[in-house]
Amino acid sequence: MAVRFELVQRQGTARAGILTTPHAVVPTPCFMPVATQATVKALTPDEVSAAGARMVIMNTYHLWLRPGADLVAEQGGLHEFSRWPHAIATDSGGYQAFSLAERTHLSEAGFDFASHLDGARRLLTPEESMRVQGLLGSDIALQLDVCPPAGASHGELREAVERTTRWAHRCLAAKHPEQALFGIVQGGLDVDLRRTHARELEALPLDGIALGGFSVGEPPQEMHRALGAIVPGLDPARPHYLMGVGTREDLVIAIAAGVDVFDCVMPTRNARNGQAFVRGGKLVIKNARYKSDKRVLDPGCSCPACTGGYSRSYIRHLYIAGEILAHRLLSLHNTYVYVDLVRRARQAICEGRFEVWQQQELAAIRAEALASVDTV
Amino acid sequence: MAVRFELVQRQGTARAGILTTPHAVVPTPCFMPVATQATVKALTPDEVSAAGARMVIMNTYHLWLRPGADLVAEQGGLHEFSRWPHAIATDSGGYQAFSLAERTHLSEAGFDFASHLDGARRLLTPEESMRVQGLLGSDIALQLDVCPPAGASHGELREAVERTTRWAHRCLAAKHPEQALFGIVQGGLDVDLRRTHARELEALPLDGIALGGFSVGEPPQEMHRALGAIVPGLDPARPHYLMGVGTREDLVIAIAAGVDVFDCVMPTRNARNGQAFVRGGKLVIKNARYKSDKRVLDPGCSCPACTGGYSRSYIRHLYIAGEILAHRLLSLHNTYVYVDLVRRARQAICEGRFEVWQQQELAAIRAEALASVDTV
Repeated sequence: MAVRFELVQRQGTARAGILTTPHAVVPTPCFMPVATQATVKALTPDEVSAAGARMVIMNTYHLWLRPGADLVAEQGGLHEFSRWPHAIATDSGGYQAFSLAERTHLSEAGFDFASHLDGARRLLTPEESMRVQGLLGSDIALQLDVCPPAGASHGELREAVERTTRWAHRCLAAKHPEQALFGIVQGGLDVDLRRTHARELEALPLDGIALGGFSVGEPPQEMHRALGAIVPGLDPARPHYLMGVGTREDLVIAIAAGVDVFDCVMPTRNARNGQAFVRGGKLVIKNARYKSDKRVLDPGCSCPACTGGYSRSYIRHLYIAGEILAHRLLSLHNTYVYVDLVRRARQAICEGRFEVWQQQELAAIRAEALASVDTV
Repeated sequence: MAVRFELVQRQGTARAGILTTPHAVVPTPCFMPVATQATVKALTPDEVSAAGARMVIMNTYHLWLRPGADLVAEQGGLHEFSRWPHAIATDSGGYQAFSLAERTHLSEAGFDFASHLDGARRLLTPEESMRVQGLLGSDIALQLDVCPPAGASHGELREAVERTTRWAHRCLAAKHPEQALFGIVQGGLDVDLRRTHARELEALPLDGIALGGFSVGEPPQEMHRALGAIVPGLDPARPHYLMGVGTREDLVIAIAAGVDVFDCVMPTRNARNGQAFVRGGKLVIKNARYKSDKRVLDPGCSCPACTGGYSRSYIRHLYIAGEILAHRLLSLHNTYVYVDLVRRARQAICEGRFEVWQQQELAAIRAEALASVDTV
């Protein structure tokens, strides 16, 4: 297998492990910053690495359309192209073909869509997704799947699950031999359907089990309940990846349930919108209350923006003036906060104190939600 | 005096010196990156310092309007606010009050204008410029001056020169006692007028002599000729600062004439427009010829973008995708190229080989202009 996963510690259903890929030894649980266009927005590879990340996820749909998978392959693959030396996962492109592209038609073959860049029609099949991800050269590929929207009917969920299983077979047959492949469990909030789907995928030689179709609009409590019912029953020998989730509270609860791998755009997207994740809530930097605030974003934080002494007053000025440095400092901070949260969870698991840690962390986060620094 | 200037070597009319300010020992000739809004666009202070810069110039007009000079003073001044630990110069704000603000009226009092941000009327007098620059806390302030456009009549030039001298007196009377003040020589391309003006300013206890009103649209050759006629006659004991200039060729020629200090937005502005200064010309990164180009921006360059191995192909992809990292890498490179050019000129002066160096450098740059990498 192209990746190796070992568990090093369990506490309740929470797990600490090590995921070894051709490019990195990744302690899990781990948070993958999102590098949509082969760059974590506003950051260099050195900065992402210094934040503690050892794996990022890049976007097959975007890179397939521009600059093109053949070009990336000719440049030596994503690692050489982007100068990120550690592990890379790539998604399948299906989510963007569905949500971002235009005039998309879904059939058993795949997604037939018009590019959001130039309107050209493209066909994204399981085989094409594998071919493209093989050319991109990621350590871990994701299967093409069907992700139904929140509120989908039972029939729609079942149909998505069945097609996703059939596509998992096709992806396994088509994948690059040296690339790891994760299957994706769908089924919305239907726990029985999710369990059935997981069993089907676990019967296949997939390197990991991802959970798709969460955080698509459902109340967080329903996702938390579903994760608690599903994740502990997944094959313990394979890594469990919760796709595109979520808030800090979501991460802590998912780790407790047994999730090993995360990705989410929140750290960098919220940075671009001028928000910093801090102890005590979310800080909206443009608010007038920070105009003369000499404190760094979070005086308890060890990120380069906070240890560098950049004040809230200065970052607010930069943000209002539209300066790139504001985005850089907020992205550095938020990425560090997310990677560090998951790192601390792992340490608590390894040291046998996860339950206490989890309660303290959740209490702090929930208190934050009640008395947050800013109303967002 | 708030700054000290010593000459360490002369070769012909070219000079190598040391400018000591309260915050830095600055080897001259030196190039100041422009930090308009208290940040060199897209770069951190660490990166600007690593490029070799020891002095930057910040913009009084912009910082006066936003975030405000009182706020900056309350935050401990520009050094503390921006985290730039070395020397800072500030311009007077007059140029922007004239070129950027709206409905500007110029009188003996100063510039009466409407802010480009909110339309509020403001009055920028020599005294107000000194008060604002004192609050900002720069090492070196610039006097308020009148900068006539290219093609101004002799009468207009003379009037600007006379008013600038009267304003120099007012600035000296109003300036913060611990801040250095540079006077500004005007006079367009009229060498006699420039010389007369320089004598008037040199009679005052100013810490340096700046040359304003160049690079305002006149042919470069005319500026070069005027510099050769004016700069060698300036008081040798004070630093000579050529404001807002220019191309690499301009810098080499001005250094030969005896200029010690430069600033120019070209490195960062051209970076934002996707241009890199390289041996052999200007490289326009979006051009299709770089689509598959695995070379770094300039294989002979020691900047972090080039030593980091980022290919032209990758930077082109980032630029076309609108990614901040493209601006960062191009800004890092161009800033390094400019600071390094002036550093190499200084070294040549110190080692007594400036004349040969200058000829080689100009021949290379002029060859570039003939057979540039890209037509811009």
